Amino acid sequence: VTEAESFHVVPIDERAAEAARVRIDALTKPLGSLGRIEDLAIQLSAIAGRVVDRAYERKAILIGAGDHGVADDGVSAYPSEVTPQMVGAFLAGHAAINAFARAVGAQVYVADFGVRTASEPSDALIDVAVGRGTGNFARGEAAMTADQAQRALAAGRNAVTNVLARAPYDVIALGDMGIGNTTSAAAIVAACTGASAVEVTDRGTGVDDARLARKRDVVGRGIAGLRDASWETIACAVGGFEIVGLAGAILAIAERRLPIVLDGYIVAAAALLAQRIAPASIDFCIASHRSRERGHAVALQELGLKPLFDLDLRLGEASGAALALPLVEAATRMISEMLTFAEAGVSGEAETAPS
Amino acid sequence: VTEAESFHVVPIDERAAEAARVRIDALTKPLGSLGRIEDLAIQLSAIAGRVVDRAYERKAILIGAGDHGVADDGVSAYPSEVTPQMVGAFLAGHAAINAFARAVGAQVYVADFGVRTASEPSDALIDVAVGRGTGNFARGEAAMTADQAQRALAAGRNAVTNVLARAPYDVIALGDMGIGNTTSAAAIVAACTGASAVEVTDRGTGVDDARLARKRDVVGRGIAGLRDASWETIACAVGGFEIVGLAGAILAIAERRLPIVLDGYIVAAAALLAQRIAPASIDFCIASHRSRERGHAVALQELGLKPLFDLDLRLGEASGAALALPLVEAATRMISEMLTFAEAGVSGEAETAPS
Repeated sequence: VTEAESFHVVPIDERAAEAARVRIDALTKPLGSLGRIEDLAIQLSAIAGRVVDRAYERKAILIGAGDHGVADDGVSAYPSEVTPQMVGAFLAGHAAINAFARAVGAQVYVADFGVRTASEPSDALIDVAVGRGTGNFARGEAAMTADQAQRALAAGRNAVTNVLARAPYDVIALGDMGIGNTTSAAAIVAACTGASAVEVTDRGTGVDDARLARKRDVVGRGIAGLRDASWETIACAVGGFEIVGLAGAILAIAERRLPIVLDGYIVAAAALLAQRIAPASIDFCIASHRSRERGHAVALQELGLKPLFDLDLRLGEASGAALALPLVEAATRMISEMLTFAEAGVSGEAETAPS
Repeated sequence: VTEAESFHVVPIDERAAEAARVRIDALTKPLGSLGRIEDLAIQLSAIAGRVVDRAYERKAILIGAGDHGVADDGVSAYPSEVTPQMVGAFLAGHAAINAFARAVGAQVYVADFGVRTASEPSDALIDVAVGRGTGNFARGEAAMTADQAQRALAAGRNAVTNVLARAPYDVIALGDMGIGNTTSAAAIVAACTGASAVEVTDRGTGVDDARLARKRDVVGRGIAGLRDASWETIACAVGGFEIVGLAGAILAIAERRLPIVLDGYIVAAAALLAQRIAPASIDFCIASHRSRERGHAVALQELGLKPLFDLDLRLGEASGAALALPLVEAATRMISEMLTFAEAGVSGEAETAPS
């Protein structure tokens, strides 16, 4: 049994979704007037396997970090040394995601799935590295071995186990850090969706036209022969230790029937790998935002997910996912704390308010 | 000096905006990668008159409530008695806005600007009523007198003074409650923008086709002769004690140089009145969401505001505005808590990262 085969994702509970719909329709508000917050409460109930009856206040953010051989080919505006520097910033608490996490009351954890330079031990650091940077697929190297791909999936599960051992979190937001990883993600998205290199490759951290052209060329060469390939073949070819690790995290959280809030492009690529392993895992996922990175919409369409908002973000680090956590909490408080028309003694109307 | 003339709104500070932009561009993230959160931090700095240097954690939600004579003409799916019932629900803490307020860490206050039935005293209730329901403009009555319109503006300022006496809030979100008020708001939006009754009238709480047709007819008759009218003429004709009160609240918050988070259609109509009194007040406003109510986009365009998200909401009660409060806090934490590349010792790139 491979690691991929060891994940047991049970489908979400459609009966709980139906029961949630009935309760929401009886609450003191016009029918359907809370739109996507209602949809969210229904999905969260289907995930939990029962109508949600409490506030999801305990929020974790898990950032998967890894380095990419392809970063040596000038596909990013930043050098690989920025990956461990930013991991250090996350652990010290002064990066964007830390500011956002404080704004939404979430705890930040970093899983090192394969950064070139290991970080100093820290309470929020989960060291599950399966290598020290991937091979450079722009030079014809494999990103990783099949054994590493399987171990990266297992590392994702281990990271989730570690996070949930700290506190019984209600929801986990996933994000990424890895210089060069929009190139790896683009190749994965192209391989999983059939889209062209041009359709999935964008400026990432903000490369200029020349680097964008080079990046497209690298992605185009990377995906040669990957159409209809297995998740493992794709992972081995174009990598991303943190992308495969995040796929494992998605599967592991789904296995535990908890909601997963996806960040942007990199995490969407991870979700596409998870989808190939266990399609039911995607029903546990909530797409937070639509990134400015053009391939993100392609990935979301393949996943069948509609983002909650579009704030023109393109940072990663789970920054968009963090901002969706209050919406998740609001949905759970709506369904568990609001009274029905009958309970509140508010006059409804026969044609719109249920008895 | 009328109440309207007594508001002194100083323009936002463009130099503070420029200084905020410089700081944001030096933070440890790719240039511009936090999109609209960066824009928000810049606006908040311009409002404060200096680069924001702390988290906006103290959040108030102020719901303006009032009743509408026009509700007697079958323009809503609910009877007027629901207005005080919902005010009671807000004060008891079991309505949608209370659930959302708890999710985002905000305090809820209700200003009674003119509900037909006065509510029992409560700590969160601010009684500034200038009447007990407006006249029915569908029957040719004036919604209110000129004196009431001026007093409703003053009531808005009094409500804001009351809220800010409770705690030094960093930001105030405005919302509404009033059966029949989408009809009044539609008439105000049409009068202020030149749009037709059809363009601004929608289903509100969820009326059927027959009621929608009647509502359009009522709005069409209400706006006759109001093109290019003054704010006072519009207010007197098609009313809304809570809409005029909310306009006064917008002016009063802008006067104090604090950010105002607007909810949906009703509050946008209030902002259009405030815009006619002091155009600079709109620069202090943040549009939270785009409502499903079709006229909301018309109003936002006239205000020159772009909403942060669209979650298909159409409830009112400040529900959308509440959900934007974590974005405001995130923006202030970004600009005040993140380190710059230089401070953090993270490698930038000459072409994108400032020295």
